[in-house]
Amino acid sequence: MTPSEYNERHGTTAMLQPDAELSPDRLLELGSAYWASRTLLSAVELGVFTVLADGPLPGEDLRERLGLDKRAAADFLDALVALRLLDREDGSYRNTPETDLYLDSAKATYVGGIMAFNGTTVFGPWASLTDALRTGINPTRTANADFFTQSYADPQSLTAFLYAMSALSAAPATALADRFPWEGRQTFCDLGTALGLVPVTLARQHPHLRGAGFDLPQVRPVFDTFVADNELGSRLSFHAGDFFKDPLPPAEVYVMGHILHDWGLDAKRSLLQRTYDALPEGGALIVYDMVIDDERRVNLAGLLMSLNMLIMGQEGFDYTGADCRSWMADAGFRDTYVEHLVGPYSMVVGFK
Amino acid sequence: MTPSEYNERHGTTAMLQPDAELSPDRLLELGSAYWASRTLLSAVELGVFTVLADGPLPGEDLRERLGLDKRAAADFLDALVALRLLDREDGSYRNTPETDLYLDSAKATYVGGIMAFNGTTVFGPWASLTDALRTGINPTRTANADFFTQSYADPQSLTAFLYAMSALSAAPATALADRFPWEGRQTFCDLGTALGLVPVTLARQHPHLRGAGFDLPQVRPVFDTFVADNELGSRLSFHAGDFFKDPLPPAEVYVMGHILHDWGLDAKRSLLQRTYDALPEGGALIVYDMVIDDERRVNLAGLLMSLNMLIMGQEGFDYTGADCRSWMADAGFRDTYVEHLVGPYSMVVGFK
Repeated sequence: MTPSEYNERHGTTAMLQPDAELSPDRLLELGSAYWASRTLLSAVELGVFTVLADGPLPGEDLRERLGLDKRAAADFLDALVALRLLDREDGSYRNTPETDLYLDSAKATYVGGIMAFNGTTVFGPWASLTDALRTGINPTRTANADFFTQSYADPQSLTAFLYAMSALSAAPATALADRFPWEGRQTFCDLGTALGLVPVTLARQHPHLRGAGFDLPQVRPVFDTFVADNELGSRLSFHAGDFFKDPLPPAEVYVMGHILHDWGLDAKRSLLQRTYDALPEGGALIVYDMVIDDERRVNLAGLLMSLNMLIMGQEGFDYTGADCRSWMADAGFRDTYVEHLVGPYSMVVGFK
Repeated sequence: MTPSEYNERHGTTAMLQPDAELSPDRLLELGSAYWASRTLLSAVELGVFTVLADGPLPGEDLRERLGLDKRAAADFLDALVALRLLDREDGSYRNTPETDLYLDSAKATYVGGIMAFNGTTVFGPWASLTDALRTGINPTRTANADFFTQSYADPQSLTAFLYAMSALSAAPATALADRFPWEGRQTFCDLGTALGLVPVTLARQHPHLRGAGFDLPQVRPVFDTFVADNELGSRLSFHAGDFFKDPLPPAEVYVMGHILHDWGLDAKRSLLQRTYDALPEGGALIVYDMVIDDERRVNLAGLLMSLNMLIMGQEGFDYTGADCRSWMADAGFRDTYVEHLVGPYSMVVGFK
């Protein structure tokens, strides 16, 4: 656009007095918020907090341990200080209590797997959001089409992926153990169980329960290790299979967490129907996800997660509680309801 | 990593009880904050707020006007509602007062140019931050090496770029007009003036001042239009040139805003020396940028901007007030001081 075209379009380029009541600051800050976000993702990817878990290090030593360029390192590490992700004293950097507990990969409390995954695999494709919105097609489809297949084929990336996902499941799994009336139930099966975080959480909290984790056969060693470390091998077992094709293990309650949103509508309906058909009379299905509020105006995380499904997936999308209840009703479920779990998570429950 | 390797490294995979005092929520939120940021950038890029400035539109009409895919559009527009960037009533979307004033490209208050620029040009390269930190080299160097040359060669992209940058200058320019003792000065020259926002702001607020804007010759028509629209043609003039090579227009005060951080140390020193040499005795130089606090622990925006220079530029970096004062002193300036302007901006002042 030439200046005269710009001028024609804008009427005038004369400066307006800024509006004292209404500042553009929030908009400008949100527009560059991805810088801070990306800085954290790279810090996790580079293992900054894992290295510093052994103790504070002078800046130059830390830079060498991380293999960073000199000019880049100073800005990067001091930006982490300004973000309150590191402390610095007399030129030495150290973890904050928060990053030491949750971003040291040698601790069982580590939640950085999901961030490393975001840093290496998810951030890049989000650069193409505008194209994806126009076409409705994952812009890096060829690269990511076989995402599950690829992740599950390689034991290393599978283990990393399963642990990464489990960081997101801890809080909703704990809430699920509290909120559902488990007293009257003896058995459950967690479909797409990954690490087994939901079975372990339920079995710990409810000693009368016995449960199964169902997932692709490659997941078995990761599940078995996790269950054994939690000393729950006598009450929890692994069942290998594909939940679109193979028989589901018998159980009074099925759980599907972070599963339904991965798939298109036909696949979603098929999964719901298969669980209904496999349940005994009186059995229950619990679906949990970042279930979007029925008005679609509050649960930002759920709406953005649905855009992430567009970016990273094929047909997957997130959905409202009303959407899920209606699909469940179509499959035959009765007495469906939605109950909030924690943060952006809710569960949708139905009975046979 | 296999499960047994993971297990060996972590000691155990047994679940820990979550720490009630210390939640990982802030870390997890920061790690995915780029989703909301990118959603806003795409909305500006697609012209959502400009289209809706003409009035509310039903979702389907808006989707067609924007040329969006059906499945993608609903999540995108409702995410904008959840971000309080749009309102929705009876299925029709409308701007909020904030987005209507600042993100409608037909209004002179528009600040979206910088966001569109971030969306199309900056976000993608930030995906390579980890590589840039390791190598110290702009990962998309070949693509962006001639960024200024390219932007300045094409009148359309130049105009868009100059207006985009000016959104960031409005607040510091106003503060600069307030904070520096302009009473005793008659003339100034703004080096790298772009649109001319600083000269217009100074001339409006201080009717005794006459000023010049100095920039590459391609900038002249944009500057002249802006100055004429603000009816300041009798007191402000444009001088074409390259501030590394050509003589600087004589003035009692030079201003350099958003300039010094673009360049490497040698070029920074050269610019400071050239202004010193061109000033009369008693003259002053005002540098403003997102000047980093001397302790390098508070001004997050300045530290991240410096990483942005790494990502997008060649040798550029942001700097502390102490850095700038010492370079100024080396060039001959006396009585240097740093004064905060607004938000992340400070000015560094020196006298000849």
